[in-house]
Amino acid sequence: MIDTGPAPDSTGAFILAVDAMGGDHAPGIVVEGLGIAAERHPEARFLLVGDEARLTPLLARCARASAVCTLRHTPDAVASDCKPTVALRMRRASMRLAIDAVARGEAHGVVSAGNTGALLALSKIVLKTLPGIDRPAMAAIMPSARGDVVMLDLGANVACDTRNLVEFSLLGDMFARTVLGLTAPTIGVLNVGSEELKGDDRVRRAAEIIRASHIGAQFHGFVEGHDIAAGTTDVVVTDGFTGNVALKTGEGALRLVTDLLRQIFTSSLSAKLGYLLARPGLDQMRVWLDPRRYNGAVMLGLNGVVVKSHGGTDAEGFAHAAEVAVDMVAHRFNDRIREGLGRLVSVMPPETHAPDAAPSPALAATR
Amino acid sequence: MIDTGPAPDSTGAFILAVDAMGGDHAPGIVVEGLGIAAERHPEARFLLVGDEARLTPLLARCARASAVCTLRHTPDAVASDCKPTVALRMRRASMRLAIDAVARGEAHGVVSAGNTGALLALSKIVLKTLPGIDRPAMAAIMPSARGDVVMLDLGANVACDTRNLVEFSLLGDMFARTVLGLTAPTIGVLNVGSEELKGDDRVRRAAEIIRASHIGAQFHGFVEGHDIAAGTTDVVVTDGFTGNVALKTGEGALRLVTDLLRQIFTSSLSAKLGYLLARPGLDQMRVWLDPRRYNGAVMLGLNGVVVKSHGGTDAEGFAHAAEVAVDMVAHRFNDRIREGLGRLVSVMPPETHAPDAAPSPALAATR
Repeated sequence: MIDTGPAPDSTGAFILAVDAMGGDHAPGIVVEGLGIAAERHPEARFLLVGDEARLTPLLARCARASAVCTLRHTPDAVASDCKPTVALRMRRASMRLAIDAVARGEAHGVVSAGNTGALLALSKIVLKTLPGIDRPAMAAIMPSARGDVVMLDLGANVACDTRNLVEFSLLGDMFARTVLGLTAPTIGVLNVGSEELKGDDRVRRAAEIIRASHIGAQFHGFVEGHDIAAGTTDVVVTDGFTGNVALKTGEGALRLVTDLLRQIFTSSLSAKLGYLLARPGLDQMRVWLDPRRYNGAVMLGLNGVVVKSHGGTDAEGFAHAAEVAVDMVAHRFNDRIREGLGRLVSVMPPETHAPDAAPSPALAATR
Repeated sequence: MIDTGPAPDSTGAFILAVDAMGGDHAPGIVVEGLGIAAERHPEARFLLVGDEARLTPLLARCARASAVCTLRHTPDAVASDCKPTVALRMRRASMRLAIDAVARGEAHGVVSAGNTGALLALSKIVLKTLPGIDRPAMAAIMPSARGDVVMLDLGANVACDTRNLVEFSLLGDMFARTVLGLTAPTIGVLNVGSEELKGDDRVRRAAEIIRASHIGAQFHGFVEGHDIAAGTTDVVVTDGFTGNVALKTGEGALRLVTDLLRQIFTSSLSAKLGYLLARPGLDQMRVWLDPRRYNGAVMLGLNGVVVKSHGGTDAEGFAHAAEVAVDMVAHRFNDRIREGLGRLVSVMPPETHAPDAAPSPALAATR
């Protein structure tokens, strides 16, 4: 099962490189998670990069995973507290080798539950951004009253300019089409008010350009913080600072209430009985808000699919992250982004430093 | 009861100017709210500015409010959708006259449930910022797992520099002391990670300066979005864009869960019974998360106390907002800010364009 460099697509299957050693509970939950993903996506194959001595016995215990994984040994791994600058020098780390496999065309995408900063830095350096994209963005799916919502950027870029926000709207649109299966997702730009005059120049100009672009009909305009959970739009576009804070603030508020509910329902015998009576609905809510269902932040705008699983996730959560990558590869996410970028060039004013060049066929071939 | 310009403090009472016509349910809830506030704060007196024809019958029906209110008639009011630039020209609007009363020393502070943008613009123009403060900030109190948290800025300034963030930490510290009654509130600067190297120069430099200041011992460092609801620090400092988005995102997430709970507990007979059994705890949670308890955003850093009630609030919520103003006046909020500013001058590097001048005794006298 030791890998000798398989040709991609030789069997028509999707191949994902997997950093087996990243995350708090790696590699156990990684192998188990791939087993779960394999059952739901029989077309997926995985190039599992990590410590052979630890992975071989895990694969031996999980037949489903073993059947779809090829093992590539390396003893090195990026620690969770490793600085990105240090990670960049670790040429034999499992995360690095997994990304390298994408760059070399051996895999269509990479999944890691490891160090986020390192994954982002390595992906940018090794895979590089798509031609025409200034900066990649981190996107994720979150629950709302009206269905799943895609939000980006969640922290890849602390500061963003007008051009970045416009590109994020394109990336978010395509992500919502690909992973949520929407045909014309609505798009909102996060602001401090919904009126056109609100906010700074950066968001106002971005709104103008998006409105004039080929996705203009899908553009809702500005949305506010409460619109995220309300599901006012399918896609919420913002800079990485605001997006990161908003994501974590929303998660924190949900945790506050769910912790309170747990306390309430265990506070007395009567409350415990109350929980049992209301349980079907409460369990449904828990499943619906389950962070594992929303696991898999995606780095969009790179020459390759890169999915970051939450470091603390379990096998089910890791399977979800892997499935996000499978969906993106299956729906030719990056090819479609290239098409959209070509159409964006015409509406992006030069002063927003318009996309560098038309998509390169050579790069497109490696996806 | 028609006002002829009472001398402030002649009876030792606190006088608050109240915009009787601002908000969705004004002036009814305003008069009723002042009645509630008067009961809890017998030392407070109110200069009620608005339409006499509408206010006189309301006061006649509410003896508690009537006993503590002086009426100042004006037929004009700032509409909720009025642009701040238009509001600035409405010299006889109830909001304007209420703020004018503070500027003239007839009242110690102003409370309005009206148009936020207009209140902020008018307050800045009429009252001006405290000497040494570059820009005012909007602050509010919100619930957390470890008690109430003060967050600022919530939208007064879309963009903030290092100096603004440092000043906000001072304003937030004093607000937490005054309104929450804390002796040494802990302070955090909102960022995308808690490590010192995270974020941009602006927040990193602000953190350094706060650490070196007289409130340095209270400084926790960087906090993240989830730390707001966790109550990691008593004060959360951020720019107005991020703060506005975070506030509304948290509110939206809470609303999503409370709406879900309402659906669950009315979905079946068994769930309804479950609700009744767990009701004491659930009711307690509802009271605790009740937005009315947190009503009253405060404009800090102006020559006068300015409190903004939520536009859609009821009488109980308006009473809370009035009480926040009473607390700030009673605890000499602005005098104490002036003292703190004097101590901040020594640690604020010149390139952050240090405070203009020492507090002016003339201005200090008007509070």
